[in-house]
Amino acid sequence: MLKGIDPRLNADMLHALRSMGHGDMLIVADANFPAESLARQTVLGRLLRMENLTAPEAVEAILSVMPLDTYVEDFAGRMEVIGAPEELPTVQQEVQATIDAAEGQRRPMIGIERFAFYELTKKAFAVVLTSEGRGYGDFMLRKGVILADG
Amino acid sequence: MLKGIDPRLNADMLHALRSMGHGDMLIVADANFPAESLARQTVLGRLLRMENLTAPEAVEAILSVMPLDTYVEDFAGRMEVIGAPEELPTVQQEVQATIDAAEGQRRPMIGIERFAFYELTKKAFAVVLTSEGRGYGDFMLRKGVILADG
Repeated sequence: MLKGIDPRLNADMLHALRSMGHGDMLIVADANFPAESLARQTVLGRLLRMENLTAPEAVEAILSVMPLDTYVEDFAGRMEVIGAPEELPTVQQEVQATIDAAEGQRRPMIGIERFAFYELTKKAFAVVLTSEGRGYGDFMLRKGVILADG
Repeated sequence: MLKGIDPRLNADMLHALRSMGHGDMLIVADANFPAESLARQTVLGRLLRMENLTAPEAVEAILSVMPLDTYVEDFAGRMEVIGAPEELPTVQQEVQATIDAAEGQRRPMIGIERFAFYELTKKAFAVVLTSEGRGYGDFMLRKGVILADG
């Protein structure tokens, strides 16, 4: 346990989040996502885990330390429901609310089609597997910057 | 860079600090300490680095997230000056001030004789090498707890 750091962020998560730079993507995966196989193709090359947490819980913990990219529209994304790309299931509404809270403003995630999401995952810094059991509980978060004064 | 986390704490440091538990010791070493050789005998088994920082700077960053052990007298220690065990060189006075600030009270480190310090280091969780160039800039910090409510 550490002062001022969400205890849901384990040692491997802190290492990965601190290692990421501007524009690097983190994929937050639900329990059905092909996480292990796709994680092997990421920069980190191995799967991270945040066990016994829903996707919104994991995203909340991650965003307590990770800034989102301010400069691009695809600062965050969600896997689109097949046949209903505009629909946001409850799990996605919850993650959107968490993002809005972290950003201090309404800032909608982009939708990403399922197979495009898999391709994007291969370009990510890392994949973190949650215990989210609801469908379409898969998200991309792109790291932003924290700048020194001056 | 991460929100609310001292940027002097690199990814390896965050991983180690999050991995440590109650009572585990971290050794903060100056530039002359036999850091690499002794680090091989610690729990972590490899040397951590906080480069281009003095020992007080490194300790300040570490204590921004790591709680010190509340329950024991040897919650922190300094390497004693040979022949003058009661003397605190400037580097040790600075670290003591950093500890007092983190604890919100005056809480003196214990003194540890040089060779006893080396033996203690072998029982530590890890050694972090700083760029401290002043003599006797070697310290032990013992991790405390952060408890949930109730």
